[in-house]
Amino acid sequence: MAKTPFLSLEKAKEIIAEYPTPFHIYDEKGIRDNVKALVDAFSWNKGYKEYFAVKATPNPFLMKILQEYGCGCDCSSKTELMLAKSIGAMGDDIMFSSNDTPVEEFAMCNELGGIINLDDITHIELVEKACGKLPEKMSCRYNPGGVFVLTNGIMDNPGDAKYGMTKEQLFEAFSVMRDKGVKEFGIHSFLASNTVTNEYYPELAKVLFNLAVEVKEKLGIIVSFINLSGGIGIPYKPDETPNDIKAIGEGVRKVYDEVLVKNGIDGVSIFTELGRYMMGPYGAVVTTAINEKHIYKEYIGVDACAVNLMRPAMYGAYHHISVLGKEKDECTEVYDITGSLCENNDKFAVDRKLPKISIGDILFIHDTGAHGFSMGYNYNGKLKSAELLLKEDGSVQLIRRAETPKDYFATFDCFDFYSDLIEE
Amino acid sequence: MAKTPFLSLEKAKEIIAEYPTPFHIYDEKGIRDNVKALVDAFSWNKGYKEYFAVKATPNPFLMKILQEYGCGCDCSSKTELMLAKSIGAMGDDIMFSSNDTPVEEFAMCNELGGIINLDDITHIELVEKACGKLPEKMSCRYNPGGVFVLTNGIMDNPGDAKYGMTKEQLFEAFSVMRDKGVKEFGIHSFLASNTVTNEYYPELAKVLFNLAVEVKEKLGIIVSFINLSGGIGIPYKPDETPNDIKAIGEGVRKVYDEVLVKNGIDGVSIFTELGRYMMGPYGAVVTTAINEKHIYKEYIGVDACAVNLMRPAMYGAYHHISVLGKEKDECTEVYDITGSLCENNDKFAVDRKLPKISIGDILFIHDTGAHGFSMGYNYNGKLKSAELLLKEDGSVQLIRRAETPKDYFATFDCFDFYSDLIEE
Repeated sequence: MAKTPFLSLEKAKEIIAEYPTPFHIYDEKGIRDNVKALVDAFSWNKGYKEYFAVKATPNPFLMKILQEYGCGCDCSSKTELMLAKSIGAMGDDIMFSSNDTPVEEFAMCNELGGIINLDDITHIELVEKACGKLPEKMSCRYNPGGVFVLTNGIMDNPGDAKYGMTKEQLFEAFSVMRDKGVKEFGIHSFLASNTVTNEYYPELAKVLFNLAVEVKEKLGIIVSFINLSGGIGIPYKPDETPNDIKAIGEGVRKVYDEVLVKNGIDGVSIFTELGRYMMGPYGAVVTTAINEKHIYKEYIGVDACAVNLMRPAMYGAYHHISVLGKEKDECTEVYDITGSLCENNDKFAVDRKLPKISIGDILFIHDTGAHGFSMGYNYNGKLKSAELLLKEDGSVQLIRRAETPKDYFATFDCFDFYSDLIEE
Repeated sequence: MAKTPFLSLEKAKEIIAEYPTPFHIYDEKGIRDNVKALVDAFSWNKGYKEYFAVKATPNPFLMKILQEYGCGCDCSSKTELMLAKSIGAMGDDIMFSSNDTPVEEFAMCNELGGIINLDDITHIELVEKACGKLPEKMSCRYNPGGVFVLTNGIMDNPGDAKYGMTKEQLFEAFSVMRDKGVKEFGIHSFLASNTVTNEYYPELAKVLFNLAVEVKEKLGIIVSFINLSGGIGIPYKPDETPNDIKAIGEGVRKVYDEVLVKNGIDGVSIFTELGRYMMGPYGAVVTTAINEKHIYKEYIGVDACAVNLMRPAMYGAYHHISVLGKEKDECTEVYDITGSLCENNDKFAVDRKLPKISIGDILFIHDTGAHGFSMGYNYNGKLKSAELLLKEDGSVQLIRRAETPKDYFATFDCFDFYSDLIEE
């Protein structure tokens, strides 16, 4: 599928006149269309709820858009809980899926009435200590171990993942939790990341639905909700076929009937914790070509760097790049597209076929809406960029200002030299 | 070589009573002893100067210690130049070794009188534009291309690196620069990172010294300085033999005589831009074990995470871990030591043999003094920790405060919801 920027060169120039590159920009229309389709795909399930994985894009303006469609917040830390609170998410709108959790964060989630999803059996005691007693509604994260292989051959290795409990531990945990007053139970699991296949959720659902049947048989507990967590991916490369969310929802429904309903269980809410799927394709880094270099390879240097988008540096991840205004030009060149860090892995693309790029050309780096800004660091003292929202009406709203040196140096503000330091 | 923490359990407990874990701590004595040995090793060279690679550990308290021994600052960005300025580094105390450089940073370096090290021949024009004219003292970064193989088999691939100029470009650049009024020339090159061998600097020096001879022969220019850049590594693993800086200095001196002096060139200053070597072993992350987990593997969860130290997550880098007070205990267990991020690569150690760890035990993660704090991000909304200095007299000084949610949310301070957001 051809990748089309959601921004024309003309529009980009208009935006840049006010907000200099580099910046992150999000496409409101894309976000809304996508969340509508998701909610529709699971509308067969009365209690369905998407908890947006805040870590993917921790911006309250974007979280609020999803909130309009009934989405809650999947939080994993204190500041993410603070963000959820700031948009008015409370009670069942918050899922706290954390691991290696500091005790005080359990308490904070509990104060907001959020649902604590236990990563480990030993956390029962910690939650009790933190909250006085166990909340009435809780869930446990399951790790089946071993290797998880999808029918299409995609595999991941839950046995090597630090998350979740074994089946025996989950049964024991549920039993202990019931004794300690928990009334509503949920099951959560995450087996594979960024799957671009319609099979992942249905196959995971089958595992968890069967587990729910076992829980009923062994403990007499009927779970209230089953959390399929994240894992639904996006096609970063143009030749990948995107997920069909309608087919995925339908696939889960089919397994729901086959496993749960058939075993006399109904009324179980399906939850998801999607991040990448909700935001990934609807965000982009917009950056200007500022240098070109001809040595043993051809390089184009841009004004963004791994500080703005770390996935290529950290994972060698592919992000498609369009040169605005040259979308239809032939890709006659082979470039490395580099940022300015003193890190040779600070390259947005390696040996990428692209049209001829001139200094001043504006590059649109696709699919940075999730785990883009949020994974930014400040290596080499580089500053994080602004986030903008391209609204449905075509106007542009600043939804996070760019960092300044003052922000970068803030943790020196308790020292005498600070005022000299930030003087520009 | 056994790795010994520079902190006893007793001292750590005393510190933690005031500054809760996790934190970075640096060892003043270690830093001083090391820089003294470095300066001594190159004392045969009258103009020798180490430019500390600020990106490794951008903390003015630490930069000032090195300054006492004549070290300057190797900067690569605006904020790093600001840090240099804040400790009073000016003129020849600043080396600006950057790539894909924003034009305004050339101007800023020039205002401080720093030495601009050109990464690319096209930058001549940019510097001219930014500074009005070329400064009288400048240097060029050389990239020999191809594969660089040390006699001991260690290799790196400069031909794939984005840095520097080809030989032909360097000659052309020098010629143009001379025509445009540059009077003092330097050569810079970086060929391999974290080399733990005494051969690297001498072999690199031979390449650059021979280049200097060619520059003399072809252009009649006698370079004033040769910058060996970084690349001198540290032994992260206990079985590695550390570099012998005295032998390295002597190795460079020998090549200096053999190549430069023999060819009638003398009085050339040797510069270095060490970061890791200056700080790496003299910093540690101190963290408390807060969770233990027994599933398909044994896990110890600590209160630090990749936010505090990203090298294991990003590069799979090894960092030695000591359990304070258990340094001499037998390593009977095999653990994954994990942080709390929702990232399965957030592990400080995988399958590491360690003594039995109990909740509350204090772990000392070695060799985090360089590219530790500075590579920290805020993924999952986690906050960066404080930096402390263990002084020679045994006292402890806060040299950077820990981040707070207010810092994390600072780039929302232009919006109405900010005051509600930061309310805890």
